[in-house]
Amino acid sequence: MKTIPVASSLGDYEIRIRTGLISSLGHFLRDLFPERPASRIGIVSNPLVWELYGKNILESVSVAGLTPVIALHPDGEISKNIASVMDLLTVFLENRWERREPICAIGGGVTGDMGGLVSSLLLRGVPLVHVPTTVVAQVDSSIGGKTGVDHPLGKNLIGAFYPPKAVLTDPSVLKTLSLRERRAGLGEVLKYAFIGDRELMGLLERSIESLAGETFEEELWEETIVLCSADKSRIVSDDERESGARMLLNFGHTFGHALEGARGFSGILHGEAVALGMLSAARISVSAGLAGPEIFDFMKNLISRASLPISWPADVRFETLAPYLGQDKKVQGKQITLVLPLEPGKVSLVRDYDAALLSNGVFS
Amino acid sequence: MKTIPVASSLGDYEIRIRTGLISSLGHFLRDLFPERPASRIGIVSNPLVWELYGKNILESVSVAGLTPVIALHPDGEISKNIASVMDLLTVFLENRWERREPICAIGGGVTGDMGGLVSSLLLRGVPLVHVPTTVVAQVDSSIGGKTGVDHPLGKNLIGAFYPPKAVLTDPSVLKTLSLRERRAGLGEVLKYAFIGDRELMGLLERSIESLAGETFEEELWEETIVLCSADKSRIVSDDERESGARMLLNFGHTFGHALEGARGFSGILHGEAVALGMLSAARISVSAGLAGPEIFDFMKNLISRASLPISWPADVRFETLAPYLGQDKKVQGKQITLVLPLEPGKVSLVRDYDAALLSNGVFS
Repeated sequence: MKTIPVASSLGDYEIRIRTGLISSLGHFLRDLFPERPASRIGIVSNPLVWELYGKNILESVSVAGLTPVIALHPDGEISKNIASVMDLLTVFLENRWERREPICAIGGGVTGDMGGLVSSLLLRGVPLVHVPTTVVAQVDSSIGGKTGVDHPLGKNLIGAFYPPKAVLTDPSVLKTLSLRERRAGLGEVLKYAFIGDRELMGLLERSIESLAGETFEEELWEETIVLCSADKSRIVSDDERESGARMLLNFGHTFGHALEGARGFSGILHGEAVALGMLSAARISVSAGLAGPEIFDFMKNLISRASLPISWPADVRFETLAPYLGQDKKVQGKQITLVLPLEPGKVSLVRDYDAALLSNGVFS
Repeated sequence: MKTIPVASSLGDYEIRIRTGLISSLGHFLRDLFPERPASRIGIVSNPLVWELYGKNILESVSVAGLTPVIALHPDGEISKNIASVMDLLTVFLENRWERREPICAIGGGVTGDMGGLVSSLLLRGVPLVHVPTTVVAQVDSSIGGKTGVDHPLGKNLIGAFYPPKAVLTDPSVLKTLSLRERRAGLGEVLKYAFIGDRELMGLLERSIESLAGETFEEELWEETIVLCSADKSRIVSDDERESGARMLLNFGHTFGHALEGARGFSGILHGEAVALGMLSAARISVSAGLAGPEIFDFMKNLISRASLPISWPADVRFETLAPYLGQDKKVQGKQITLVLPLEPGKVSLVRDYDAALLSNGVFS
């Protein structure tokens, strides 16, 4: 098992990564809360994940002597709203949840965001464990304490900083993702390489077709998840509240989120949107004279090798996107802070720029 | 001006207490956030408070060079729900709020609880300043970082720990409270004396009729607010997350909350319910043999001198209350933790007791 520490002002925690972990989840949970006299464990998940893993998890939880209380939420970003959070909260309140009883969020980014927010709001906070089951959840959203739901005005506008007590990651569950979902996850994986992980960049330059292939390459994926998790951990440990380095993680997300918003959070996967958003940033960087045109080609090549989109949907124009750019949480003053690539493996925060440059972000 | 420090794991802050502070609120806010280039200040309040102080506050805010964005919520505990919080959040999101822009909650406990929760959830947290305008808000709810709303299953079941950047307290605003509200506030004030503040106990034994009188005694109230604020600050600084000493602050609140719940959070004021709840605790303590009957008489005497209720409404029976007792956040395992008086100025957490004793808490 690989263990990666994460520092947080609200309590340090660990990411534990092991292929096959999901089959003995009950014991991992039991070990995290050994002193508990009672033995309930709350589970927040969605019907798709639960259909795949529910039976095994219930068995391992039972073997570990834990009694589960299960709250499922509808699948998809469309359900990531405060009404779903209230429904989940009601399940635990009806079961007379107590402040010391932990909740385990088992699923992708939406489940982690909502399970995290539920844990932070329930009785002003109960212990939280993330069990991420998608690429994006494993390498990004389960680490760092961000929780949240969407508002009609934008994505993740309502939420809390609420770090978990632990993140339990099983890379082998990625094999049950659809090929499209797994490939989309490579959008976030590529981000870590583009913002500075040289070891990961080497791995991706050698093997990205294998990661994006129909056959699930278990060892390669485990190696990738470990590298990305360590990247995310290092950055959020240094800058929990996103005043500096953590903003680099938004690389590709300004245009990516805007695209998701313009599409009503459906039809395009988050990692696909991020891949396009990173290319948008590259275009803007080149237009601003911050990098030569080769940066765009370099990134486009790797994104293309991951079978991810490399040009914007024909019906999306900059004017469609513009309203969604302003509401991004990265706004400072009146100008959006951009994360722009300078060279392969190097990006920079850019606050002063000609606003007209933004329109270069949408290209065919 | 009296300044009281409060320690918090999420950042220390100060309570600043001064008669007349509300008239120069704009400058106090400006001084709290001197480095801001922009100049908006969010205001969460309710129509009653805003009717009384809105004009003055807008003037002082304008003189200080700040632009207000105002979000009012309906008055009363009945409006303290997630729907109201969403309405308030929408106001700030529509104004494209930014993460560094502060929100100021001006009002009583409901406003502070909701303004605090709004600040914690908006863009995952914006700076918060409390300006409490009721006795309960000044001596209790504005200090310590608790925010929250009610759920149909109980009071304050949904919320967050979110300490403010500062608490700005003007005792002179208490003169605009109704006599009943001001007296109800003495329920919380008496609590600090009963749980151990000897200086305050002396003040109350000498002057409680003056505090409860029709004429607003400005200096006496300021002295009282300072003593209680220091008590609250000391306790929450030592035990932010309510693992030990902070639970003593729940004295009177187990039965008090249950009564409020049984009444649908209306008809009885929080401080009145707490006063009765403290007498319930005294009755249970005497029944359990933890204190002699004189403790009840001692407390009843002071509560009576504050013109607060000293016997339960005739239509409330223990059976009515029982369902509301179990859902209290103080539950540990299956038994509610009680806070029981041992002698004047001394209470204790009691976890093991005969459940049948609870019914002594309701008396005529």
